[in-house]
Amino acid sequence: MRAINFSAGPCTLPLDVLEEAQDELVDYRGRGMSLLEMSHRSPEYEAVHNEALDLSREIFGAPDEFAILFLQGGASLQFGMVPLNLLGPGQQAGYLASGAWGTKALEDAGHHGKAYAAWDGADSGYTTMPGPEDIEIRDNTRYLHVTSNETIHGTRLSEWPNEARLVADMSSDYMSRAIPWDRFDLVYGGAQKNLGPAGLTIVFVRHSVLEETNRDLASYLRYDIHAAKNSLYNTPPVFAIYMTGKTLKWIQRQGGLAAIEKAAQARSDLIYDVIDGSDGYYRGPVQPGSRSHMNVVFRLPSEEDEARFLGEAVARNMLNLRGHRSVGGLRASLYNAMPMEGVEALASFMSTFR
Amino acid sequence: MRAINFSAGPCTLPLDVLEEAQDELVDYRGRGMSLLEMSHRSPEYEAVHNEALDLSREIFGAPDEFAILFLQGGASLQFGMVPLNLLGPGQQAGYLASGAWGTKALEDAGHHGKAYAAWDGADSGYTTMPGPEDIEIRDNTRYLHVTSNETIHGTRLSEWPNEARLVADMSSDYMSRAIPWDRFDLVYGGAQKNLGPAGLTIVFVRHSVLEETNRDLASYLRYDIHAAKNSLYNTPPVFAIYMTGKTLKWIQRQGGLAAIEKAAQARSDLIYDVIDGSDGYYRGPVQPGSRSHMNVVFRLPSEEDEARFLGEAVARNMLNLRGHRSVGGLRASLYNAMPMEGVEALASFMSTFR
Repeated sequence: MRAINFSAGPCTLPLDVLEEAQDELVDYRGRGMSLLEMSHRSPEYEAVHNEALDLSREIFGAPDEFAILFLQGGASLQFGMVPLNLLGPGQQAGYLASGAWGTKALEDAGHHGKAYAAWDGADSGYTTMPGPEDIEIRDNTRYLHVTSNETIHGTRLSEWPNEARLVADMSSDYMSRAIPWDRFDLVYGGAQKNLGPAGLTIVFVRHSVLEETNRDLASYLRYDIHAAKNSLYNTPPVFAIYMTGKTLKWIQRQGGLAAIEKAAQARSDLIYDVIDGSDGYYRGPVQPGSRSHMNVVFRLPSEEDEARFLGEAVARNMLNLRGHRSVGGLRASLYNAMPMEGVEALASFMSTFR
Repeated sequence: MRAINFSAGPCTLPLDVLEEAQDELVDYRGRGMSLLEMSHRSPEYEAVHNEALDLSREIFGAPDEFAILFLQGGASLQFGMVPLNLLGPGQQAGYLASGAWGTKALEDAGHHGKAYAAWDGADSGYTTMPGPEDIEIRDNTRYLHVTSNETIHGTRLSEWPNEARLVADMSSDYMSRAIPWDRFDLVYGGAQKNLGPAGLTIVFVRHSVLEETNRDLASYLRYDIHAAKNSLYNTPPVFAIYMTGKTLKWIQRQGGLAAIEKAAQARSDLIYDVIDGSDGYYRGPVQPGSRSHMNVVFRLPSEEDEARFLGEAVARNMLNLRGHRSVGGLRASLYNAMPMEGVEALASFMSTFR
């Protein structure tokens, strides 16, 4: 029996995608070998690669002004590559210290250029995201780095700032919401939540930005080289790209980004409604305007209640509802591939349990 | 029918490994989900992760003085990370410019420190590797970087230098030969030739070296952080690690490193014997003492003959024998998972064709 898997990532994938991959794993479409055994210069792999690139653009609605890069190393490597490539002499970068991820991005950037907190959520315990009026941009700011969704704290940047060129880490709500591309210089994220298995990072970067990036870096660290080589500068993470391509096709079959965005809102609304209608039994620590559509965090009256809740959920085949070890409590991650029936089962259980 | 796949990488994998992965892909051992859908902090994944780390140490015979890191970004990212981590002020690094890969490593290192060619194979057209007496080490050399096997040129470093601490890129003969660990500070390589699918880089680094590495880097670029976090600093490339673990177990079943090394020698000897016994019809450009056990490159009397050879090989189900586009000719890559029957089929065809 298939589990209802609320893991925060890696996480649930569409069953169709897994079954297709299983069918093709040993012998790829009658070629006498697995796709995993083919050169990344083979026509078979190049078709997979280019289709995944094209679907990424189409589904996310990225204009032609953006190059799309398939990289490795997760968002974490981007924490280094962004300032290494973008920050020139005399420039600095603002960061939203909006939670665990935004803060890490800020710390890492400081090793490769001047970076400052344009807003800090520590005082609120990271239970809210800033509005544009809360963000302080300093002189010579090259970019403002935002984390669109903080996975651990369950917060979401609902309003995109417009006071500086934006760089966004969208790892935990990638391709689940439309974005105003004209404000962005670069968007990145790991694929392992909304788009596929671990091992692939997708970067959208504006072509005009690539003309001015730092060239005094090892080749792998240079965005311009990956763009010029169509993300085949070196051996790409073949399987993760192949699976992401299949997931993107699945998203297309669901109706594309607009349908996915609507479904994400419906899923999270269902759980927030149970929380809000529970007379305080369930408590959502996040301010209403900053609630994540991907990671719904909530507390019960006591840690004992939480432990009992988790145990009974497992007995009902609902897995991985424990909150991140750094914050405790409960967290239901409702990524793109989470079926509505899974969310309904959780909502129903929450009402019964209370 | 399964092809005989001489691809230079990604390349042939053990059929057992592919079939096991296929069986487990949709539902991992009755857990109701794929391993791809599990958190990298789950007990199931942690068992896979730690088993692959342990097998890497056991099979390659790495002493406890070495940490083992599972990273992403291929050898190419290591071309940057090695000098970023190891080169201190006033130090420089020697590189063997032994072919396409050694030369790239040298160029990339120059962006992050002082690096020089301790030997250059360009004059010989990269048809030979240096002996220890050919290598010139300058003052304040922190390490000597060697490429143990040049995939494109089909050369192999048969004698390990002992004039400086060694750093080796072993991507294309990884875990196919025993090495004198006492001379090494660091060994790295992509898994996608001898060990698994694309997407995983394995780094062996001496613990004493980690005490002195550069800390002024974004976290992902720091070896010491990956070592301290058991390669779970961020989401690892789950599937590539899982497949590599299975391949390492397969190597263990073959008899371990000694058996694998012997088999590699036997496979390549068979093809070199056909070349040497062909009265000059087949020509191996590589000097005998530098011949690769992994990538056997050879030429025919004319490019027309080579094209005909390739066509007839395909008709016999022998695929991917074309040499790298930068050098032309033919190349048979005979990595760990290539069965002896495949090599015998090629040897027999070469004799018949001639």
